[in-house]
Amino acid sequence: MGVNSNRVEDFSSQETTLRITTESIVPGMEIHNVCLPPKKTTLQKLKQRLGEIFFPDDPLYRFKNQTWCKKLLLGLQFLFPIFQWGPEYSLRLLRSDIISGLTIASLAIPQGISYAKLANLPPIVGLYSSFVPPLIYSILGSSRHLGVGPVSIASLVMGSMLSETVSPHDEPILYLKLAFTATFFAGLFQASLGFLRLGFVIDFLSKATLVGFMAGAAVIVSLQQLKGLLGIVHFTTKMQFIPVISSVFNHRDEWSWQTIVLGISFLVFLLTSRHISMKRPKLFWVSAAAPLTSVILSTILVLCFKLKTHKISIIGYLPKGLNPPSANMLSFSGPDLALAIKTGIVTGILSLTEGIAVGRTFAALKNYQVDGNKEMMAIGLMNMAGSCSSCYVTTGSFSRSAVNYNAGAQTAVSNIIMATAVLVTLLFLMPLFYYTPNVILGAIIVTAVIGLIDYQAAYRLWKVDKLDFLACMCSFFGVLFISVPSGLGIAVGVSVFKILLHVTRPNTLIMGNIRGTNVYQCLGRYKEASRIPSFLVLAIESPIYFANSTYLQERILRWIREEEDWIKANNEDTLKCVILDMTAVTAIDTSGIDLVCELRKMLEKRSFQLVLANPVGSVMEKLHQSKTLDSFGLNGIYLTVGEAVADISALWKSQP
Amino acid sequence: MGVNSNRVEDFSSQETTLRITTESIVPGMEIHNVCLPPKKTTLQKLKQRLGEIFFPDDPLYRFKNQTWCKKLLLGLQFLFPIFQWGPEYSLRLLRSDIISGLTIASLAIPQGISYAKLANLPPIVGLYSSFVPPLIYSILGSSRHLGVGPVSIASLVMGSMLSETVSPHDEPILYLKLAFTATFFAGLFQASLGFLRLGFVIDFLSKATLVGFMAGAAVIVSLQQLKGLLGIVHFTTKMQFIPVISSVFNHRDEWSWQTIVLGISFLVFLLTSRHISMKRPKLFWVSAAAPLTSVILSTILVLCFKLKTHKISIIGYLPKGLNPPSANMLSFSGPDLALAIKTGIVTGILSLTEGIAVGRTFAALKNYQVDGNKEMMAIGLMNMAGSCSSCYVTTGSFSRSAVNYNAGAQTAVSNIIMATAVLVTLLFLMPLFYYTPNVILGAIIVTAVIGLIDYQAAYRLWKVDKLDFLACMCSFFGVLFISVPSGLGIAVGVSVFKILLHVTRPNTLIMGNIRGTNVYQCLGRYKEASRIPSFLVLAIESPIYFANSTYLQERILRWIREEEDWIKANNEDTLKCVILDMTAVTAIDTSGIDLVCELRKMLEKRSFQLVLANPVGSVMEKLHQSKTLDSFGLNGIYLTVGEAVADISALWKSQP
Repeated sequence: MGVNSNRVEDFSSQETTLRITTESIVPGMEIHNVCLPPKKTTLQKLKQRLGEIFFPDDPLYRFKNQTWCKKLLLGLQFLFPIFQWGPEYSLRLLRSDIISGLTIASLAIPQGISYAKLANLPPIVGLYSSFVPPLIYSILGSSRHLGVGPVSIASLVMGSMLSETVSPHDEPILYLKLAFTATFFAGLFQASLGFLRLGFVIDFLSKATLVGFMAGAAVIVSLQQLKGLLGIVHFTTKMQFIPVISSVFNHRDEWSWQTIVLGISFLVFLLTSRHISMKRPKLFWVSAAAPLTSVILSTILVLCFKLKTHKISIIGYLPKGLNPPSANMLSFSGPDLALAIKTGIVTGILSLTEGIAVGRTFAALKNYQVDGNKEMMAIGLMNMAGSCSSCYVTTGSFSRSAVNYNAGAQTAVSNIIMATAVLVTLLFLMPLFYYTPNVILGAIIVTAVIGLIDYQAAYRLWKVDKLDFLACMCSFFGVLFISVPSGLGIAVGVSVFKILLHVTRPNTLIMGNIRGTNVYQCLGRYKEASRIPSFLVLAIESPIYFANSTYLQERILRWIREEEDWIKANNEDTLKCVILDMTAVTAIDTSGIDLVCELRKMLEKRSFQLVLANPVGSVMEKLHQSKTLDSFGLNGIYLTVGEAVADISALWKSQP
Repeated sequence: MGVNSNRVEDFSSQETTLRITTESIVPGMEIHNVCLPPKKTTLQKLKQRLGEIFFPDDPLYRFKNQTWCKKLLLGLQFLFPIFQWGPEYSLRLLRSDIISGLTIASLAIPQGISYAKLANLPPIVGLYSSFVPPLIYSILGSSRHLGVGPVSIASLVMGSMLSETVSPHDEPILYLKLAFTATFFAGLFQASLGFLRLGFVIDFLSKATLVGFMAGAAVIVSLQQLKGLLGIVHFTTKMQFIPVISSVFNHRDEWSWQTIVLGISFLVFLLTSRHISMKRPKLFWVSAAAPLTSVILSTILVLCFKLKTHKISIIGYLPKGLNPPSANMLSFSGPDLALAIKTGIVTGILSLTEGIAVGRTFAALKNYQVDGNKEMMAIGLMNMAGSCSSCYVTTGSFSRSAVNYNAGAQTAVSNIIMATAVLVTLLFLMPLFYYTPNVILGAIIVTAVIGLIDYQAAYRLWKVDKLDFLACMCSFFGVLFISVPSGLGIAVGVSVFKILLHVTRPNTLIMGNIRGTNVYQCLGRYKEASRIPSFLVLAIESPIYFANSTYLQERILRWIREEEDWIKANNEDTLKCVILDMTAVTAIDTSGIDLVCELRKMLEKRSFQLVLANPVGSVMEKLHQSKTLDSFGLNGIYLTVGEAVADISALWKSQP
């Protein structure tokens, strides 16, 4: 013990001073103490932990060291981002916003009508939903480029979940009530997530899951549009692949060639315009204007050939006027409340995911920050207000935001311009949609959702991460063959299972010394790394938890067995010391501590020494609290593998 | 770029050679390449991964490089461990085994009768269950000290789950059928877990969960025994705290003082004997013999005061003879099949957990290995055989095994001796139990389960790991107030949530250089660590997944913001380079890769350089596959933080 008697550390004193061996054995190798983290009370730890969980972005940092007056202004700006850019608003910005606002309005009107049909709601509800929510968002939202309105995924999910229980054709009033109630719960859920700062819940819908989910949903929706595109009258309300396909082929007698011709020509037109805009982003207005153009053209066509319109189904009468209040239609009792809540939560979480992701994407392009929790509150409040003014679930839509961004939107004023254009439409232009054929709405929907099938992303997942690809496929086939919530559930399950699998079966690696350095790296990966005789250096690449302590014990014993076999076969020095590199063991629980103790005892019986290298702060603390450190003693814990090897081999030399 | 132009690495060539800068800037500092792991095909990776998941212990290693003849023998020994110790069995071992076998038999007979009552089964079933399963285990099992038979937890859970649907008093035959069917499914489930090498499933019942669960179950069982101890006739069949307590006090008129006096005196006797054995392990026989002594004494007492026995309820007639076959009572259809399967799985998993844990504990004491998956098959097969011979769920019991071990058991022959003693009892001694009072069985059960309340373990959990303590409390109160499966489910949920929380909100630490070394450690923890001007070194302590990529982005940006504030306040050199120490980032998924790319772009816009230090093999591979490595280029990835700092600051000096 002579060589490092000056390394004595009283672990319980919490003193963290540096002591260096006077007689360093390997030249230049100093032995450092492993420190405990600074002592904290349970309350302090809890406070810090909760701070990390709920306030990782330190949202109030702007308020620090400010005068009261400034704090008030900052608070106002914090709650209403409009006060941030409002004072600096100029005519130049207004001009950009008017152009982009009118551009998205020309997209929003046909989209609103189409998506409302997707949700099995009256088309007018889609227009209402493009009026009130954008106004509210422009006051509360922190994104400058988000185009707000109904989106395909949320519409489709709401339509599919509600219509499995209530028929929109037989009980339209009840269906409408349920839709508004679900919208209210979606908003409440979104706002609560933001208010309680639980925004990380939506992180569990990984990108891989969403790629699969959206592709599955797009396939289902496109197939459902065959009803409109083929002119079928009697169609299934189910959302699974098989009933929809069989419904298409069982009603071949209802197919109408006029509808098919009209539908396919406009579908080709829309897809071509979409293709052009994708190839040349500068021509974004081609795809933005195409839906409105199609609506106008097809309406005129139908109007001209009025005589034959009995073959082509049309939208028909739409009421003029502003959003009627609908607070009286919210019902918080009755047998369908559970359905409304469930639908609200699923559509709420999906629309939130799209809204936040879109907001973040465009914010990153323009290099400003979008506060996730604040966005959730904005979207939530806008849906709650929407549910009281005849709107259904809305959020930041990817297609509208992309058009908005490309058209040069500068602030949320573009949403106000869009809402104004919708207002004018609602007040004066509704009769113009009387002869608009339903088939054109189907074509618009198909064009919109086909963009959701991102096969390149799926291929990238396959190439980079097979388990992510599996999660993607699970949600794709789950949505296609089982149901929307099940598909999502399965995919989240697979994602969580992946995390658990990594913890349950962590990597363990044999490390070797890289010649001429104190660096230890994986033997299999670095050819210049070499074994140190009599030592076995193992790196554990995961926290040690109940879920893996049994595995790790078996695996470490197997490494030792294999090392002994190798030594026997190669006539090397016998194994004397096992060093566990704990750098990547970022946490430990009581089962993990038991494993460490158990392992030390087992190796002691076989007269091997067990040494821990570089335990992180929290692990060190728990080892201390459980008194495990005491059993390891002086030569049991080192700061680096290099120091451990140097010190222990010096000890062996001095005690032959 | 001049200084490290010889560090050029063609990442795509997969060549891993060491190149050292000729002009090292910091004396003695060589710059090493970061290598990709050796290239493997998807199939090879899958094979290795599956190998780690299902065969971490490499069970066939004994068979490697052996002759065919030897392989056959080893295979036989592998399947039937009796062939391992059988050939070396001696008279000396037999003597030890006879003593320990008879000792556990004296414990097993009263325990069997009592636990059967706990499961609401006829007392004779408990004795049957102490006969067939131990015989089968002695051939298949790999533990030498496991005492096999019914256990309190599994009995209690089976009793509570089945009697909530089927009354054991009104429909005794149906109840018995369900119990045997559940036992069959328990065995099937256990054997399948072992056969499919899914043994890690039981690891998810962490020790913390089990401490709470067993304490909760012990409280409930003890309260239920008040029925017997107070002599109450009409008692609830529910298992929750509140109905049991109210049942006790609502039937105060049924309390019988004779029963209470008898019960309390024997309870005191049993608890005292248990206390003595715990204080002095050498006197283990005191507590081992106490139950049988109590049974004999109380039976004699009741026999002597025969006249008053109508006040004390007795066991009554028990049939003589061996286990009758019960394969015809297994039913695999009908409305209660789901209940039987559920009960089988819950009792199967609980009894497996106890059996494996007990086997491992005693194996560790005698320094031999117990193969978890093989044990599962042994226990599973013994339960499947048991269900066809009128036995209910059995496993390795902690109390029996402890007595067995202390009595000097050497091999599984002690189980055969015990089974023989039970056989003799079944054949000849059953009438002796006629006058045994039920109250004594209650006292035996209470004594057994009180040992399950491990408040010291709970206190240790509280001290070492607050979240483990929370899981413990959840399972305790869940079992007490809701139900046994819900309590278990909640506790497993909390444990999994803990893992997810660690992943969702990982630690990030600012690192500083420890003076005079190349070691970088946490600034807050090591006072001798100091910042490097113009650099910010961040360590991320978790894999980067979809669940934390948003958090990590926010948190890293906040660190940078705070660092800049600090620099401004202290007039230090401006920040130029952010180094992420990836040592503890043991895995990455596609969302994580997106984060790294995104972060690099964001920092580039603010003209900071982003550098990764020491990415582990799998992370390096994914960065390569996703082409992210290319965007990092030459000065983007280093083997250690020290090399990164040295190389980049040298580059700055050479390019002023």
